[in-house]
Amino acid sequence: MLERLSGDTRLYLTVGHPIPQVKSPGGITRGFEARGANAILVPVEVPPDRIDMFFELAADIGNLDGMVVTIPHKFRARQACATVSPRAELLGAANVLRRNPDGGWHGDMTDGIGFCNAVRAKGIGLAGRRALLIGAGGAGSAIALSLLDGGVESLAVFDLDTGRRDALVGKLATRYPNVAAAPAADPAGYGLIANASPAGMRPDDPLPVDAAGLTPAMHVGDVVTAPEVPPLIVAARAAGCTTNTGTEMYRAQVDVITDFLLGRD
Amino acid sequence: MLERLSGDTRLYLTVGHPIPQVKSPGGITRGFEARGANAILVPVEVPPDRIDMFFELAADIGNLDGMVVTIPHKFRARQACATVSPRAELLGAANVLRRNPDGGWHGDMTDGIGFCNAVRAKGIGLAGRRALLIGAGGAGSAIALSLLDGGVESLAVFDLDTGRRDALVGKLATRYPNVAAAPAADPAGYGLIANASPAGMRPDDPLPVDAAGLTPAMHVGDVVTAPEVPPLIVAARAAGCTTNTGTEMYRAQVDVITDFLLGRD
Repeated sequence: MLERLSGDTRLYLTVGHPIPQVKSPGGITRGFEARGANAILVPVEVPPDRIDMFFELAADIGNLDGMVVTIPHKFRARQACATVSPRAELLGAANVLRRNPDGGWHGDMTDGIGFCNAVRAKGIGLAGRRALLIGAGGAGSAIALSLLDGGVESLAVFDLDTGRRDALVGKLATRYPNVAAAPAADPAGYGLIANASPAGMRPDDPLPVDAAGLTPAMHVGDVVTAPEVPPLIVAARAAGCTTNTGTEMYRAQVDVITDFLLGRD
Repeated sequence: MLERLSGDTRLYLTVGHPIPQVKSPGGITRGFEARGANAILVPVEVPPDRIDMFFELAADIGNLDGMVVTIPHKFRARQACATVSPRAELLGAANVLRRNPDGGWHGDMTDGIGFCNAVRAKGIGLAGRRALLIGAGGAGSAIALSLLDGGVESLAVFDLDTGRRDALVGKLATRYPNVAAAPAADPAGYGLIANASPAGMRPDDPLPVDAAGLTPAMHVGDVVTAPEVPPLIVAARAAGCTTNTGTEMYRAQVDVITDFLLGRD
């Protein structure tokens, strides 16, 4: 890639605040390279009080072909789009933008797709599975929608913040009849457990679900990327479950985002 | 470099309009890498009617540490600077910007330094040389100043546009007593010939100076980068002169710019 970096390299930006923690620039730039595109994704830290000006200017930057948008700009990014995918419309947020032929932005929300693709890559089907989602924040909302779009039999949503939990369930229920609030983080009776809460990032975090309820028929996925094998996945493997780590989910999403940005999805 | 590209990579931009022709992103990014800096320079095409907004936004981009500025924004770039070098002040233009400790931009004008460094790299001293410069445009103005700063005995400036020639001579004469207008592009009597005109880029261009006047004691340098060995350099080598190509000048400037951007000059 570096060999081709020059004035004719097409530019993509990862937009967030703060920005040092994002991993997309390296992975997606390698994805561009693997697909033969002379393009690069670089981080740009835009403070919230400058995000309006950023989107106004971005429209007129001649070699800027797309963006990956992260915290806290995903909702503002959807507003900057002329067109969006149905899932971005429902969630009211966009994490990837590319140009339409007329130069306007087309947005999508891929945060949930990486999770489902990572599950499928393990040979696990979504159809017919009763799913339990822990965490109804940004990542959880996107995963919830992808699980429902992917054909799970039902989805139960748990969040310690019951208001946030019920708001997500209410939003999804306008389109899907098979979603409900879960009263507890108890995996008993589910075939797919998805942790979209940060539990597991700190050494003293409790497990996001009761590990005693894990059984070999379950698939357990986790969004946590550090540690690379978080405590829930350690417990799930010990219980005989199939698993997906957050790192696997991230890698699966890299391909989805790269293809979207290049208009090859 | 690509191995380290991530959210914590420090960002530098090459700003111009158009942008595909610029070569700085690859060379300077390699320069960052050679110096152990996790930093990247990428091209950004900013149209003239957006350059004010660009500089307003750039001030607040948290991971943006500097810029290389090219046509047509070098004069506007100087205005965006809180502080500039004396040569940028005299020329009223800046082609490189980096942050001051308070976040404001410090500008310099390195277009002429590459030329003089390339000459010195051939073992040729500037002191005591009578220099003839062809071309009083942006690059020529910067080279003129660097030659004078570098200690040439005298500088004669030729340009087919005598108004432009005289304007540059007048500006330089406020500081240097040893600069004058040259009535013709005749190398006779000079020890250093610098072509800063575009003559040589097209196959049917006339030579910028009368080749019959070239003698082995002369050093001849050319800003033209394509063809890599332009016709003036071919003629100078045939006459026994030492020479510098535009590509050598560009490479010498890459190191100067890289060190400036990293604050290591």
